[in-house]
Amino acid sequence: MAALQLLEERIRKDGKVFPGDVLKVDSFLNHQLDTELLEAVGAEIAARFSGLGVTKVLTTEASGIAIACFVAKYLHCPALFAKKAKTANIADGVWSANAHSYTHNNDYTMVVSKEYLGGHDTVLLTDDFLANGCALRALLEICKKAGAKVVGAGIAIEKEYQGGGNELRAEGLRIESMARIASMDAEDGISFC
Amino acid sequence: MAALQLLEERIRKDGKVFPGDVLKVDSFLNHQLDTELLEAVGAEIAARFSGLGVTKVLTTEASGIAIACFVAKYLHCPALFAKKAKTANIADGVWSANAHSYTHNNDYTMVVSKEYLGGHDTVLLTDDFLANGCALRALLEICKKAGAKVVGAGIAIEKEYQGGGNELRAEGLRIESMARIASMDAEDGISFC
Repeated sequence: MAALQLLEERIRKDGKVFPGDVLKVDSFLNHQLDTELLEAVGAEIAARFSGLGVTKVLTTEASGIAIACFVAKYLHCPALFAKKAKTANIADGVWSANAHSYTHNNDYTMVVSKEYLGGHDTVLLTDDFLANGCALRALLEICKKAGAKVVGAGIAIEKEYQGGGNELRAEGLRIESMARIASMDAEDGISFC
Repeated sequence: MAALQLLEERIRKDGKVFPGDVLKVDSFLNHQLDTELLEAVGAEIAARFSGLGVTKVLTTEASGIAIACFVAKYLHCPALFAKKAKTANIADGVWSANAHSYTHNNDYTMVVSKEYLGGHDTVLLTDDFLANGCALRALLEICKKAGAKVVGAGIAIEKEYQGGGNELRAEGLRIESMARIASMDAEDGISFC
């Protein structure tokens, strides 16, 4: 079965919708990890961006790492994960960008070592979730500071109705999301685009 | 070439020893990720613990996730990563254990959802590094609280001279480390066991 169908079916089966617009998929995506599913999703994302000369698959810790590993495997390039640091405490030698977590309601800074990202790199961004787009914007800022080219973003689950993905598309970013949620509700369940 | 040789050669080639007993391997293991190498290491760890009925591969965020994904893939079971939480703020519904990070010189708490770890589980622990054993002890405590059986620990790089691994072995834990560092020094380089 295609990776997209597998993922949608798994979200329908095991995803739990909670008040406050929370979709809990930690039984397979971001706490417990179904590596067979993640590898299929990673291979599909890689296929969408093949032939573009990607040299780095960039994500953010912690829940993007699993997907990024499998995407990078199929693009035959390294994965790289931005680390979360306290904003007040940024060392030299890193590219950094501020971000806000709506999940945890805090501000933090993403950092990537300058050793591993530069003007010679062609980057594919990837993450487990895309909602308001805040994390992707921080990764884009890091790539801009590094002078790296970005070919797009490959996402496991996009909450399309939150609008962050479509704003970024309107600004010219190519985004490929393996599952796009049109709406969700604790009573009515989940509808896909 | 065998995974162990590949890993040792990579440590010799790209590992950097800094004062304060720091081995920097973030060009391939815990910031930038060489997924081909990590998959070979993960497959080897899985082979060492095959046939033992492992149902979960347990690690801790963030740098253990990549290895755990590949180990779990080859053991055909889910990976599960303990999240780091502020000690003061632990919810119900999780198994937790306190740990100390010598790298960051802070205390934190590891948490795993009770939904994903219980008395029916047979667990293989895995991590990128083993030095003083503090992280492994926290994972063991979580498994003990959950009533889960632990078959051992598969580690990418053990700093053998720090003694944490051998203390745990003396207590009965089976540990398989893919590279064991006997000594290291900024001037004299790295010696393996």
